[in-house]
Amino acid sequence: MRNDFHGELDSLIQTLSQMCGLAGLAMERATQALLQADLPLAERVITDHDHLSLMQSQAEEAALLLLALQAPVAGDLRVVVSSMQNVADAERMGGLALHVAKIARRRHPDYAVPEEVNGFFAEMGRIAVDLGNNAKDVVLSRDPEQAAQIDRDDDAMDQLHRHLFTMMMDEKWKHGVAAAVDVTLLGRFYERFADHAAQIGRRIVFQVTGETPDI
Amino acid sequence: MRNDFHGELDSLIQTLSQMCGLAGLAMERATQALLQADLPLAERVITDHDHLSLMQSQAEEAALLLLALQAPVAGDLRVVVSSMQNVADAERMGGLALHVAKIARRRHPDYAVPEEVNGFFAEMGRIAVDLGNNAKDVVLSRDPEQAAQIDRDDDAMDQLHRHLFTMMMDEKWKHGVAAAVDVTLLGRFYERFADHAAQIGRRIVFQVTGETPDI
Repeated sequence: MRNDFHGELDSLIQTLSQMCGLAGLAMERATQALLQADLPLAERVITDHDHLSLMQSQAEEAALLLLALQAPVAGDLRVVVSSMQNVADAERMGGLALHVAKIARRRHPDYAVPEEVNGFFAEMGRIAVDLGNNAKDVVLSRDPEQAAQIDRDDDAMDQLHRHLFTMMMDEKWKHGVAAAVDVTLLGRFYERFADHAAQIGRRIVFQVTGETPDI
Repeated sequence: MRNDFHGELDSLIQTLSQMCGLAGLAMERATQALLQADLPLAERVITDHDHLSLMQSQAEEAALLLLALQAPVAGDLRVVVSSMQNVADAERMGGLALHVAKIARRRHPDYAVPEEVNGFFAEMGRIAVDLGNNAKDVVLSRDPEQAAQIDRDDDAMDQLHRHLFTMMMDEKWKHGVAAAVDVTLLGRFYERFADHAAQIGRRIVFQVTGETPDI
């Protein structure tokens, strides 16, 4: 019975890890679709998201079954419950990539963002992929050091996000209101993506150390 | 033992219900702070949010304890787990009210939004309060009819949100980029507030009917 439990729990954690990687991949593709006004790629991110949502439902059902049949306690119980919470964050990360892809699709064949801010979004996309991959690894390794890297990436994303706002508020912004609205939303999507990854990292650290890291 | 269980579960659900009401109240006050450039009220919303976050931690701990000590199965298990998920949504609703209050604080003594869109935000605030109060009631009544009202309010919020965007994209928008950035973010905060309330409503309907309502 206990072996069954740990086998099933491993499988839940593997699914979560895959979901983090897929969310990072979705944001990588969404960023490419955004910067290159690539409609087929945007469509692909949008369609692929169904798979991540399905993985979430299946993982939640698997976790409920684990709770019902095995009634884990103490540390095992916390791992099951926090894995369910992490699965929801990973799905949401994919949902934010979907939102980026939808803006790319809405503006096609135009580019959604002015060339001046392309560098920001390329960098935010790069950090998002890193965050997805780090979350993917941390979920398996449960290494607090590696989880700390997620927090550093989250800080880097916040800094880019703030800088983006400063640029738009500046009188030198010559791209008008419509572009500012898109850039505002896009910036928020990347920032939230990082927040969810950081949340996953913090839950892992809490499981291992019993302490919530400073935010 | 079973009576203990249902007493503890009731207490968890009461906390969740209170949290929904408090989130609605926070958005009511944040909206007032926004529309009247009322700094003390904005500060109050920001400070009060700690209480909601604390309620979330305590509710999550209570739910974990229920799972560990009572090992509920079937319907009872689903109610405990979905209450935990609902608690996270209610906390997030309060977090979005906090974001609205922070924009009001950042722009003080100026008004954050142009007078032209005041009516929109007043209406979005009114719907948000409704959503909070309906979620508060539905959590207790578990009435699918009442949950359907949450979905209708969510639709109304989406419509206002879209209309707001149309206004900003219009050439007649004379309030510049900075105001558009604030209005974009604010619109998103109200829309997400409604999404989280709708999510709570859908989980309740699923518990009662076993079916996820169409979104």
